[in-house]
Amino acid sequence: MRLRPLATSIILGLASTSAMAQWQALPEQAPAPADNPTTADKVELGKMLFFDPRISSTGTISCASCHNVMEGGDDHRPTSMGVHGLQGGRNAPTVWNAAFLSTQFWDGRAASLEDQAKGPIANPIEMGMPSLDDAVGRIAAMPAYAPLFKRAFGSQTIDADAIAKAIAAYERTLITPGSAYDRFAAGDASALNEQQKRGLDTFAATGCTACHSGANFSGPPLPVGTGFFMRFPTFRDSPYVAKYQLDADKGRETVTGKPQDANFWRVPSLRNLVYTAPYFHNGSVKSLPEAVRVMASTQLNKQLGDNEVADIVAFLETLGGPFPAQSMPRLPPTPGDMLE
Amino acid sequence: MRLRPLATSIILGLASTSAMAQWQALPEQAPAPADNPTTADKVELGKMLFFDPRISSTGTISCASCHNVMEGGDDHRPTSMGVHGLQGGRNAPTVWNAAFLSTQFWDGRAASLEDQAKGPIANPIEMGMPSLDDAVGRIAAMPAYAPLFKRAFGSQTIDADAIAKAIAAYERTLITPGSAYDRFAAGDASALNEQQKRGLDTFAATGCTACHSGANFSGPPLPVGTGFFMRFPTFRDSPYVAKYQLDADKGRETVTGKPQDANFWRVPSLRNLVYTAPYFHNGSVKSLPEAVRVMASTQLNKQLGDNEVADIVAFLETLGGPFPAQSMPRLPPTPGDMLE
Repeated sequence: MRLRPLATSIILGLASTSAMAQWQALPEQAPAPADNPTTADKVELGKMLFFDPRISSTGTISCASCHNVMEGGDDHRPTSMGVHGLQGGRNAPTVWNAAFLSTQFWDGRAASLEDQAKGPIANPIEMGMPSLDDAVGRIAAMPAYAPLFKRAFGSQTIDADAIAKAIAAYERTLITPGSAYDRFAAGDASALNEQQKRGLDTFAATGCTACHSGANFSGPPLPVGTGFFMRFPTFRDSPYVAKYQLDADKGRETVTGKPQDANFWRVPSLRNLVYTAPYFHNGSVKSLPEAVRVMASTQLNKQLGDNEVADIVAFLETLGGPFPAQSMPRLPPTPGDMLE
Repeated sequence: MRLRPLATSIILGLASTSAMAQWQALPEQAPAPADNPTTADKVELGKMLFFDPRISSTGTISCASCHNVMEGGDDHRPTSMGVHGLQGGRNAPTVWNAAFLSTQFWDGRAASLEDQAKGPIANPIEMGMPSLDDAVGRIAAMPAYAPLFKRAFGSQTIDADAIAKAIAAYERTLITPGSAYDRFAAGDASALNEQQKRGLDTFAATGCTACHSGANFSGPPLPVGTGFFMRFPTFRDSPYVAKYQLDADKGRETVTGKPQDANFWRVPSLRNLVYTAPYFHNGSVKSLPEAVRVMASTQLNKQLGDNEVADIVAFLETLGGPFPAQSMPRLPPTPGDMLE
């Protein structure tokens, strides 16, 4: 789904300070596809696979390397670093609440969490395996895994689909309902202080909700695979465009090949922003206040005052956590001839 | 302490199948130095620091990267891989039960866990920070850490000593008493099966206990900083020496500069060997049976039969785990300008 920001705000009717009833709390459970219901056994297996570095060529990179769930679900870097120190061109999106997005990756090239999980494994600058089958072979070479696949899927068969399903099931538990904002949205007016409430109003009045709508602040809920894309930067004469090279990467166009998709990007969630600096697809903006100024200028052609920025940031901070407590998985031993 | 293997076996009197009373179970607590008692607050802080990749130049390498406590406490690789994919020359020793060793690193260049913790941070091929002070600066730049140092040490001062003490305190909880062997040593004769008991006898009768004595199978308990070193390979005409290039790295000599220390190494623990393939200081031997054959040949000038090797391996497997359940730490957010 590709919409112009101003059109969206009218269609969705969210950009209004009076529409307080429309502030939505994050659901306590993430939706799961019919062919991959979330079960405890699958989640436990998925957590093991998520933390298992043996599915990278060097044995040093796991999903958790770039999506550190002990922190913001990203890797703290402007752009990610895979095997052999190779660097990608984009900022790692957080895995927290990715379960609520209708498409995965910045450019939406994967429809689902299941599809996404298969992407980095054979990417030469991420996990660097020669093929997805080689990663399957690595997992299958550790005998302790087979009974866990049996328990999770009813079959000991280890293949890329089962691996991806287990990882996706785990990721659907990586959600953060219960933030101060969520408590406010659920009716507890005392959950936000005065500045945070002012920030919420300013956020809506400025027009941010045109794109960052819904409980996840990533646009309306859409069927998996749809994607909610916006052009960024929209106002190309904003001085921030050159300053942060915001239009260098063509985004969605690199997937579809269509010129009209140039610089379109999946609208990211605004949850846990405090934990995911630096910002944007190229990780070029280091602070949250500056990110707010950049968005107002490039997307809404507005220059916010310092107080407005501070209030919006105070509001955005209410979208952080709480992060569920997690136990560490225990991983099977590595066969001695697995990693050369 | 440098001893010849044969002399040691006489002095320590452990290499005897009849001395069953001398099989010792691992203590439930690791010893701690007087100036760094193990406390819950310190352990929790130390766990955070152990898993924090922000103390590496790239923000990608934490202590846990090469000492994966979700598995064998090592990195599954022949030799380790630090920042930018740079590789060291030695196999990462496991952190499990390192608290029972009287010296740290393969060559014993650190006296204590506290000293060891400071080593990799500024090593250009490990964590790659310009200096230890730069790592201290990274931790100090995350405001959430200061109150945790206050709680652990009574002072908000963040310095290299406090960081090292906290990490060491956490590492002293990374111990595995309660293995099948430990239960056997504590008097439960049924904890080992017949093959495992045969293996234990063969292990002692072959002379392995000359070096691999004590509850941790890493030599006698010695004051911190002493070190229990042995020459490896001892019998240089063993065909395994050339096959696995066992004498290429001069070991302890690289620390002391003394020719008589050439090829001396700290005697490693035999606990959790199943989880720490590949083996030896250069990670050259891929399987545990082969490692047993290599040791018998190079250290004791003995060629073991296949049944003897199988029995010893069966015994060594009883030295695995159990690994304590651990919760994941929650790390403070990264300031946006920390990682370029």
